[in-house]
Amino acid sequence: MIGQRLVNGVDSSSVSAEDRGLQYGDGLFETMLAVGGSIRHFDRHMQRLSEGCVRLCIPQPAPELLAQDCRKVLEGLDRGVVKLILTRGPGPRGYRPPAEVIVTRIVTCSAFKAPPAGSDGLTLRICETRLGSNPQLAGLKHLNRLEQVLACAEWDDPEVAEGLMLSQDGRVVCATAANIFVARGGRLLTPEIVDCGVAGIMRGVVLSEAPSLGIDTCVATLRLDDLGDAQEVFLTSATRGIRPVAKIEGIGEWTGGALARVLRERLGPQVS
Amino acid sequence: MIGQRLVNGVDSSSVSAEDRGLQYGDGLFETMLAVGGSIRHFDRHMQRLSEGCVRLCIPQPAPELLAQDCRKVLEGLDRGVVKLILTRGPGPRGYRPPAEVIVTRIVTCSAFKAPPAGSDGLTLRICETRLGSNPQLAGLKHLNRLEQVLACAEWDDPEVAEGLMLSQDGRVVCATAANIFVARGGRLLTPEIVDCGVAGIMRGVVLSEAPSLGIDTCVATLRLDDLGDAQEVFLTSATRGIRPVAKIEGIGEWTGGALARVLRERLGPQVS
Repeated sequence: MIGQRLVNGVDSSSVSAEDRGLQYGDGLFETMLAVGGSIRHFDRHMQRLSEGCVRLCIPQPAPELLAQDCRKVLEGLDRGVVKLILTRGPGPRGYRPPAEVIVTRIVTCSAFKAPPAGSDGLTLRICETRLGSNPQLAGLKHLNRLEQVLACAEWDDPEVAEGLMLSQDGRVVCATAANIFVARGGRLLTPEIVDCGVAGIMRGVVLSEAPSLGIDTCVATLRLDDLGDAQEVFLTSATRGIRPVAKIEGIGEWTGGALARVLRERLGPQVS
Repeated sequence: MIGQRLVNGVDSSSVSAEDRGLQYGDGLFETMLAVGGSIRHFDRHMQRLSEGCVRLCIPQPAPELLAQDCRKVLEGLDRGVVKLILTRGPGPRGYRPPAEVIVTRIVTCSAFKAPPAGSDGLTLRICETRLGSNPQLAGLKHLNRLEQVLACAEWDDPEVAEGLMLSQDGRVVCATAANIFVARGGRLLTPEIVDCGVAGIMRGVVLSEAPSLGIDTCVATLRLDDLGDAQEVFLTSATRGIRPVAKIEGIGEWTGGALARVLRERLGPQVS
């Protein structure tokens, strides 16, 4: 049901004020697209969540429990965006994780908002807020998201759909809530996610599926200069799919988006 | 009352699962020591919180409202640790701060635990978890604390009281929940907090009060090598005061702690 919220499997709209998710951002999340009543790439989402639990030493709930929560909030729905938060649960004051952890899982369903029809591609900006470097947290979709919050607060022009975020040393890493792919020299390049950024689910899908469509891919170091002479640029996101980029302010403009179209058709479903 | 919890001024033990403090760590906190029924350095705590609100563009609640919450949870108590969390409040899914923000304030009181008597100084370790660099967040006591959580999870030896955290490029920045001061060459040095770390309240007190005691201070770049030949090392924290360091594993050992003693006596109250 749109707007439904389960906390540890039970209808609830609140969590303990002692929850470490609130106290320290001590947890992980996944934002997933449901189509035809089931979640796309659910196994990949669970795989990333599981890796996050291992790296943060958060006990993993049984996957079936999480799947059950998701089915519950999706009941009777064809499409929806399911957000799952997993925290280290409540605990006493202090950063040290408690010896006994009872994780908190929060699952909610919100409406899928289709992007405006007829859009020829996104306009992006380069965010001034940069991503801090931390290899231990890189790749994970954890709850420490102040950098993304600050980046999104930088603009309010509705024409600008997303912002690209750079590392402290100026590498292009990802958008605030999407990954970036760039076609250059006959290959599809996407930034390496080694010291910051999120390893997006749709990024993983493109990297593993593109070769079977005859498209070479490469995980690479990308700088702003590398974007300017790209043949094509697109963003990937689990909930918004593959979206061609028409313009990056101050960098360049693109039309066409042939690779994005091919990948969307093949890796669909159409989400617009 | 120990254990009391106020959410927006009302007795409550829970917050909305939609709160951005939980969703993104989008907020700030202060942990304050009350002695004789009133909070030490309350103005400094409010000053840091206020600076955090300005830098994160979170509307500031009236200081009197926060003071009132603190008085409420402290009623009838002589000593206690008051923790105040301020978040950007509930909001719809998405990193972008909502246009209309209704902040959430959570104020709790926990017991002050005096350190074990007769302790000759703390033993510290050097944490493997390093602090990510982000000048926009440096100094603030914000809710994105996964780095500190990971650092504290590195050891469980009860003899080790704290862990020192380094920046990505190996500078000594602070302990997981305290700042560090080092006496070298007749001066008291503490690391600059410019791209990571928290600008602690007691650090500020020492920096402003030490000169009147004839102690020169300097905010400096410190590396591990600079610790080894220090004459004295101590930690500062708003709730634990000034604590001499007896040993940093792999770096050095110290006895005496004359400066720490002088500063404790002058800047008290005695918290042990």
